[in-house]
Amino acid sequence: MRDVAIIGVGQTPVGEHWDTSLRMLAGDAIRAALNDVGRMQVDALYVGNAYGATFSSQQHLGALLADYVGLSGIEAFTVEAAEASGGAALRVGYLAVASGAVDTALVVGVEKSTDMLASARVQARNTTLDADYEAAQGATLPALAALLMRRYMHEYNVPLEAFEGFSINAHANGRHNPNAMFRNTLKPGAFAKAGMVADPITLFDGAPDADGAAAVVLTAAERAADLVPQPVRITGSAVATDTLTLHDRADLLYVKAANLSATRAFAQAGITSDNIDLFELHDAFTILAALTLEATGFAGRGQGWKLAQDSAIGLTGALPISTFGGLKARGNPVGATGIYQAVEACLQLRGEAGANQVPGAEIALIQNLGGLGSTAVSHVLRV
Amino acid sequence: MRDVAIIGVGQTPVGEHWDTSLRMLAGDAIRAALNDVGRMQVDALYVGNAYGATFSSQQHLGALLADYVGLSGIEAFTVEAAEASGGAALRVGYLAVASGAVDTALVVGVEKSTDMLASARVQARNTTLDADYEAAQGATLPALAALLMRRYMHEYNVPLEAFEGFSINAHANGRHNPNAMFRNTLKPGAFAKAGMVADPITLFDGAPDADGAAAVVLTAAERAADLVPQPVRITGSAVATDTLTLHDRADLLYVKAANLSATRAFAQAGITSDNIDLFELHDAFTILAALTLEATGFAGRGQGWKLAQDSAIGLTGALPISTFGGLKARGNPVGATGIYQAVEACLQLRGEAGANQVPGAEIALIQNLGGLGSTAVSHVLRV
Repeated sequence: MRDVAIIGVGQTPVGEHWDTSLRMLAGDAIRAALNDVGRMQVDALYVGNAYGATFSSQQHLGALLADYVGLSGIEAFTVEAAEASGGAALRVGYLAVASGAVDTALVVGVEKSTDMLASARVQARNTTLDADYEAAQGATLPALAALLMRRYMHEYNVPLEAFEGFSINAHANGRHNPNAMFRNTLKPGAFAKAGMVADPITLFDGAPDADGAAAVVLTAAERAADLVPQPVRITGSAVATDTLTLHDRADLLYVKAANLSATRAFAQAGITSDNIDLFELHDAFTILAALTLEATGFAGRGQGWKLAQDSAIGLTGALPISTFGGLKARGNPVGATGIYQAVEACLQLRGEAGANQVPGAEIALIQNLGGLGSTAVSHVLRV
Repeated sequence: MRDVAIIGVGQTPVGEHWDTSLRMLAGDAIRAALNDVGRMQVDALYVGNAYGATFSSQQHLGALLADYVGLSGIEAFTVEAAEASGGAALRVGYLAVASGAVDTALVVGVEKSTDMLASARVQARNTTLDADYEAAQGATLPALAALLMRRYMHEYNVPLEAFEGFSINAHANGRHNPNAMFRNTLKPGAFAKAGMVADPITLFDGAPDADGAAAVVLTAAERAADLVPQPVRITGSAVATDTLTLHDRADLLYVKAANLSATRAFAQAGITSDNIDLFELHDAFTILAALTLEATGFAGRGQGWKLAQDSAIGLTGALPISTFGGLKARGNPVGATGIYQAVEACLQLRGEAGANQVPGAEIALIQNLGGLGSTAVSHVLRV
């Protein structure tokens, strides 16, 4: 198995792009990633996208985007794992280059979320829940996340205010990210008082669906050093799953797939969680931040929320998370989110994160979740 | 890169399964494939599915199906490339095992096409065309295929009746396939007189959308021989693309992606088209059969239709095609079709094709198309 490196990154701003279509967003990110490398031969394009069929009435994005960016003929197709679609597409790019079948692969994550009414979007969003046992019963992702959060608060006797540190940190980091959707700071106390989305989840808790695209260029590590000054190696790559439905889990508060995928990625990389300098986690809801910190070994059971009580998760803390704003402040262009995580981690490891730089960052963990941890994709990146 | 082999195959009957849901179909095929091998450890599940979001309101099939068949925890996600989704999922399984990252992978293709009204299905089906430049203009896949066929008939001065041999052959082979949707024979002369779908495409020309699932088990070739008596090696694997839209093609009658993917797969396998003993091609429309025979080197430009005039494409002919009925008679469970092709080719190469056996078959080409050749996935299989 060949070692694989990321040699180019690109991204669009995240937000509501009324004048930019799905293909235009993806094209912008792809061109930015290719420009980051300089001109080169590309053999394959893997597309991470979750809701093209429903949000945009557009599937078959592999052939469409390959042609749109002038690469028609190359291998191309779409990878879908709900909100973890971007991470899963990165996994396919990794496998293709690692196998030796593909020398250089583009991986693009893209979503156009805002071209439909919010009510229709909820129905479209529900296609990634269990259609028969969740969606048909009236459940939505925020409603299920609310059940999870309520359970956590009950089991560990934690108040709602305990979660605000995750959102405050995300917004503090999003403030200096020119591509972030939200660049305002969040004042202490505002979190719990914000409008309720699904009790106890407030408007300042859940990440906003958004438009955006991000792309990376992968090639064999052995040739990467000849191509760019700072290739970022992928030293661990793993996908794991859990039940699709929350109600089928023996232990609601243990995100098994996050644990499994991180454990496998750490083992492949020959590291432990102690070696991680920054963690781009899937903070679609603050409860997911707390639970994945626990499942990946950064906090004990019921202790994840405590990391948000002091500066531990800040840029200069022991474990910086959501360093460019995370899903909460950068925004959540669903199928693109996993690639935004990869792009942001690369910028950190290359020392190009500007005001968001984590000092001395050498090893990053990125983790993309589908649903409430039904799928988890973990990658370890290092310079 | 490790050599990869198919060690187990499974399929459900193709048809209108009113009492069987999407997950049940996939589960049946997966269990059949695992039973074909005997009990073994599985590391990953790759799902080929094109229309889960629209036909079944169900995405996130990786986690759902892994859990449904008792494999929750393993790597799993969906691969989509329109009608070529099954072939693209097989490609991912191949890359995963070839890389060494995954030892044993399940690949399942599944589609539940009949749970919606035909009018709604047309709209859902159109998400794999270009939403802005084809679907929004009123185009449908059969309508575009009709333009292509009309052009072929005009350029090469070929009458409609010239294509009937493809459908007659497909039905002749479907007749003995217990899993085929259509098991009736087609009388000479009926083809051109059948009800018109999109002039000149008749009811006996286009393949029917259907429900069905098929699965294969892949592992490293080096261990395959210890596990099963007749592993089938994948000696060539390639994906290629062309423009999504027909109107962007310089040469309408040249299926570039079919040519590119077959050429790459042949090169990897170290063979030419002369070595192929049978060809499971993508006969969603007879015009695609004619054009892919030409693009993959089995016939000259404008000559593909001639192969259907005699027994060349029959089970004992020079190049048997659609040996279990093809898309036309076996039926087209869209995202599953590419895996049905793999299953059927394996049965041929293992000498287990019964009344459909191609005598002495050792090397098979399978080719799965997305749209009218916007994506083409080719695999070379051999015993």
